[in-house]
Amino acid sequence: MINVSLSVVKGIPEIKKDDPLAKILYESIESNGIDLRDGDILCMAHKIISKAEGRIINLADVSPSENALYYSRKLNKDPRKVEVILRESRKVLRYFRHEHQNEGTIICENNLGFISANAGVDESNLEEEDTVIMLPKDPDLSARKIKTFFKKKQKVNVGIVITDTFGRPWRIGQVNVAIGIAGVPATRSEKGTPDNFGKIMKVTEPAFCDEIAAASGLVMQKSKKTPLVIFRGLDWKNCNGSAKDILRNKQEDMFL
Amino acid sequence: MINVSLSVVKGIPEIKKDDPLAKILYESIESNGIDLRDGDILCMAHKIISKAEGRIINLADVSPSENALYYSRKLNKDPRKVEVILRESRKVLRYFRHEHQNEGTIICENNLGFISANAGVDESNLEEEDTVIMLPKDPDLSARKIKTFFKKKQKVNVGIVITDTFGRPWRIGQVNVAIGIAGVPATRSEKGTPDNFGKIMKVTEPAFCDEIAAASGLVMQKSKKTPLVIFRGLDWKNCNGSAKDILRNKQEDMFL
Repeated sequence: MINVSLSVVKGIPEIKKDDPLAKILYESIESNGIDLRDGDILCMAHKIISKAEGRIINLADVSPSENALYYSRKLNKDPRKVEVILRESRKVLRYFRHEHQNEGTIICENNLGFISANAGVDESNLEEEDTVIMLPKDPDLSARKIKTFFKKKQKVNVGIVITDTFGRPWRIGQVNVAIGIAGVPATRSEKGTPDNFGKIMKVTEPAFCDEIAAASGLVMQKSKKTPLVIFRGLDWKNCNGSAKDILRNKQEDMFL
Repeated sequence: MINVSLSVVKGIPEIKKDDPLAKILYESIESNGIDLRDGDILCMAHKIISKAEGRIINLADVSPSENALYYSRKLNKDPRKVEVILRESRKVLRYFRHEHQNEGTIICENNLGFISANAGVDESNLEEEDTVIMLPKDPDLSARKIKTFFKKKQKVNVGIVITDTFGRPWRIGQVNVAIGIAGVPATRSEKGTPDNFGKIMKVTEPAFCDEIAAASGLVMQKSKKTPLVIFRGLDWKNCNGSAKDILRNKQEDMFL
């Protein structure tokens, strides 16, 4: 008996600025023969959102600041790209270039509060040369708009998870994490409920939106034009969450 | 069209020391009506392995060292539990007790090299009072044994992922990560392959084993006796990997 299924939506066209993204997703889902139901979750790579929202910058239009030039020299990194990274960030936490790397990395707290490499500024899967793509300005809002579209158009209550691909401390490789959500909760707390032997659990709080995001990476390959995955069978209740709910209070970050 | 499915195996009995775990899993899978195929992945919570391998300690048998007494006082933590945590660790990275917490946490590099809270020493879902459970001694080996059992018994090539539940820096809530694997690769590198526009990807290397582990958390609830999830439909090739392959070389950890 299958409890949860992941279905990749095929044939999503290359998204361009001002494209009606929700409508395009709706039509793609339909032409894949998927009949959405209440409780389905649409998990998508942020790039399609960023593209629709015009969050692409042509580097020719960027003048690097002194600060950007500093990191550029240290990291052998295009100063204009560094400038975009700094504009997208509240704070630089660390920067590093390994010997075997052509260019280094800046670990930032971005304007949304997420901590990752290069503030989510990326150059892969872009049609035009010398451009970089940024995260959506307000991914929760982007998610809510898509959710609302499906509610109106199809009378269906779906959840939305928008992902970015993050590296991790201590562990190599990347996983997708949630940077925007609508409907679904960020975490599902089991705190205060008993385990199988009646002992009350004190810390158990699975990061639901990140579990979905990470799972989507199993089928969402960057070279395969598969930015949308439909999850069916998950147990969640509609709520007004934000992906920022997953951000740890800095005073409580025991790991760092 | 479903690309990947997750099926929870129900009715796995409480595992005790020296139980023939692989045989029990085999019988449970069969009685759930699941006919395993080549390429299926069995993802399981480490606790069933640890229980079968007798990795449970009665705290009455533990004498805390001076070092354990020190952390015990600082963290309001049972000194015998601290002693077990220290024995399971190579190194204490940090320790902390928040104001609202009854007892604090020790962030350790455990004897396997994984960095997490309390070296994986845990007290939930244990039948007997005043006991704690540790990670398996060699989770890769435990995974390989189960894989071999299924190969012999059912002539089927399955992958195995053994998980623990980890907190994360910067993000609240927990996700499952891989601490032991057999057959499946730790990561699936897309480095050197072109993106959709022909640009060669330099860093893309999804953490496959951790994506599986995180996804399992969507259905593996701690209070529901569901330590085993079968993944079907994933794209992987049999290899001799280790979950330790996911450990980042300390000199290359840009995040910390």
